Amino acid sequence: MLRSDGGQRSEFRATYFLESAVPLQQAAEVIAGEQSSGTFLTLPGETLELKERFRARVTRVTPQAPALAPALHSAWAARHARDAVFHRGEIEIAFPIENVGANLPTLMATIAGNLFELGEVTGLRLLDLDLPESFAAQFPGPKFGVEGTRKMAGVHGRPVIGTIIKPSVGLSPEKTAELVDNLCAAGIDFIKDDELMADPPYAPFDARLAAVMPVLQKHADRTGQMPMYAINISGTIDEMLRRHDAVVAAGGTCIMASTNWIGLAGLQHLRQHTAVPVHAHRNGWGALTRHPALGIAFRAYQKILRLAGADQLHVNGVQGKFWEPDDSVVASAAACLAPFAGVSPLMPVFSSGQWAGLAPIIHGQLGSDDLMHLAGGGIIGHPHGVEAGVTSMREGWEAAREGVPLEEYAETHPALRAAIEHFGGVLA
Amino acid sequence: MLRSDGGQRSEFRATYFLESAVPLQQAAEVIAGEQSSGTFLTLPGETLELKERFRARVTRVTPQAPALAPALHSAWAARHARDAVFHRGEIEIAFPIENVGANLPTLMATIAGNLFELGEVTGLRLLDLDLPESFAAQFPGPKFGVEGTRKMAGVHGRPVIGTIIKPSVGLSPEKTAELVDNLCAAGIDFIKDDELMADPPYAPFDARLAAVMPVLQKHADRTGQMPMYAINISGTIDEMLRRHDAVVAAGGTCIMASTNWIGLAGLQHLRQHTAVPVHAHRNGWGALTRHPALGIAFRAYQKILRLAGADQLHVNGVQGKFWEPDDSVVASAAACLAPFAGVSPLMPVFSSGQWAGLAPIIHGQLGSDDLMHLAGGGIIGHPHGVEAGVTSMREGWEAAREGVPLEEYAETHPALRAAIEHFGGVLA
Repeated sequence: MLRSDGGQRSEFRATYFLESAVPLQQAAEVIAGEQSSGTFLTLPGETLELKERFRARVTRVTPQAPALAPALHSAWAARHARDAVFHRGEIEIAFPIENVGANLPTLMATIAGNLFELGEVTGLRLLDLDLPESFAAQFPGPKFGVEGTRKMAGVHGRPVIGTIIKPSVGLSPEKTAELVDNLCAAGIDFIKDDELMADPPYAPFDARLAAVMPVLQKHADRTGQMPMYAINISGTIDEMLRRHDAVVAAGGTCIMASTNWIGLAGLQHLRQHTAVPVHAHRNGWGALTRHPALGIAFRAYQKILRLAGADQLHVNGVQGKFWEPDDSVVASAAACLAPFAGVSPLMPVFSSGQWAGLAPIIHGQLGSDDLMHLAGGGIIGHPHGVEAGVTSMREGWEAAREGVPLEEYAETHPALRAAIEHFGGVLA
Repeated sequence: MLRSDGGQRSEFRATYFLESAVPLQQAAEVIAGEQSSGTFLTLPGETLELKERFRARVTRVTPQAPALAPALHSAWAARHARDAVFHRGEIEIAFPIENVGANLPTLMATIAGNLFELGEVTGLRLLDLDLPESFAAQFPGPKFGVEGTRKMAGVHGRPVIGTIIKPSVGLSPEKTAELVDNLCAAGIDFIKDDELMADPPYAPFDARLAAVMPVLQKHADRTGQMPMYAINISGTIDEMLRRHDAVVAAGGTCIMASTNWIGLAGLQHLRQHTAVPVHAHRNGWGALTRHPALGIAFRAYQKILRLAGADQLHVNGVQGKFWEPDDSVVASAAACLAPFAGVSPLMPVFSSGQWAGLAPIIHGQLGSDDLMHLAGGGIIGHPHGVEAGVTSMREGWEAAREGVPLEEYAETHPALRAAIEHFGGVLA
């Protein structure tokens, strides 16, 4: 957009699904005004020059079929709206970069703040976000990303095969270390804590780290590769920094945190200090995304976490125990790997109800091996034990990558065959 | 609950609205299992003793009328559920305290984590949270709360009257200071930044603080009371601490942050360091709460922010420009003030489309003066200027507290009368 002074205004853009009790263009203008220089009245200090320079612009309105009932109740709409229908469509809004600066909480307040609460709005979902590269470069971005994760895990040319410490609650540090020993002996690439496990009184973080690290080191000495253990350091800022330092001092190669709860400032602080990849656990994410007319779509969410500096991010599993359809899960993984304003890609983490037989589905639909495939019960619950569980995962991916039908590959690979027999009926 | 060893298990409890494709009790058990020691299979390390000690218990299931269509789509439910209806009701789950410890992100991962994504779940909303006092005492809680806010603002026996710097975007530090000067001259108790304004290149935080603080100090020297200015320090952890220190060094008495984006770890870190009350701006909250079958209810949300250490928290306005019905807004304010496990109450902040004439509604419905009433346009846009705007707000509350009808009180109070004439038609 040409400014009145002849200069080119630098902008970033957000795309939304919008449902509104007033016409779409009008609602879009209300959002743009509320999220830049607007309030419900023209104010004394709000000069035309100021408005021209700082106002957000509605750059696209693409109507869809209206609805006869609102997706979300609005008391304001019930009082004020005269239309008999609820207008629906996609809108794009362009915000001046200088409104925000390199400030992640303020970027979020602008694109995902009070706009969800506006009375005109009976549905609003942030679908996507586009920043100029020069603006994106002002945020930290992933320190490790896909390449750094692969390098530190020592895994190339195939997915990183991983598991989650289970049971997620109740294991003592000693029992955890025993399980880790078995998993490493079985050749696992990656282990993570459950998000429910961080620093409980019966298994404090320090005791868990002290129990687990010598076991990891023993296998690193044996194989020449430290297994990547994403230990859950979630806690206060001070606790997380202290735990990060302890992990790195002990030779660990990954940290994990519940990113929705430590927050973007917490994540960015970890990014600033970390010497190892940050495994972002998105628990709570369902509350922000499950309704199609509310919240945030993953395409936008992963960009925000990329800006803040996550390296690995959960995308659910295919055919898993969660609500999400496979095509949505695979699209999330593809989004993590897609170019975004010069910001490094994220390593997508497939997890929840995963087992060896799902590898061909992921491989076929994603068309990439840049991912982590985590099976909790699918490895630890394998009928022939943990080693067979890990082997079955590798075999599933070998079959997928070689284009051999799973059943055929299983004929000569007993661990995969046992997985199919045990998990196939449960999970398919 | 009596443990098998005869001891009393210490628990906290979460209440949910649940809609499910499987019978309610079954879905509740799945949630309790997933959020404690469960996975989709019984695992080698998961002994009966471990399960008994660490499992979450379903302590209440209160059915409601079922639905014929799901509130939220679940691909899992479409594959697996055999029932023709979607079961609905309230459930309560009791979690062992020792599963979590004094760790806020892990508390959230437990009560508001992956459970939103479970395939059985076609609707889930965290309604409430109850902790034993001994457990709540392990979290910081508000450092100032209602009493500390009142003391530092020098306002007793009536609401704190405040405003928001408008226009929210575009004002230079000098123009901001001019507006602050006018507001303080008019006798305002409290001023806050808009959440869109933190540290933009055209009005950097340091320049804004440097411009505003001498003005505030001038009025403090004049009146003996420093006006409370909630300056938006949102940013990285290091930026926020540095800004907090600068605010306090300059004599400021409040800081503000976008709490959903700095996160609970960010908020707790501010709580740990702050010498002044923390004004919690909940922008983005709409995405978490607007659908009645998803997300988090304010009753639970404010408890979490109380644990983390917020002092003041937004609750929207009555008759405002947002979606929320008045009874819900007032219930939110009441929740902030209600007892909770020995944790100090929060100062509720009424904001959005507020003006003098709404005081009697709030007063009548809340039955308390422990609140902040913020009018942006309702003060700065008053037809007789900012001073009349502030006066009208005070007069509105005088009328409310004295039980005099607004119109009658306005007969002898011209600022209130002008507010009614100007805003009454726009906003009522």
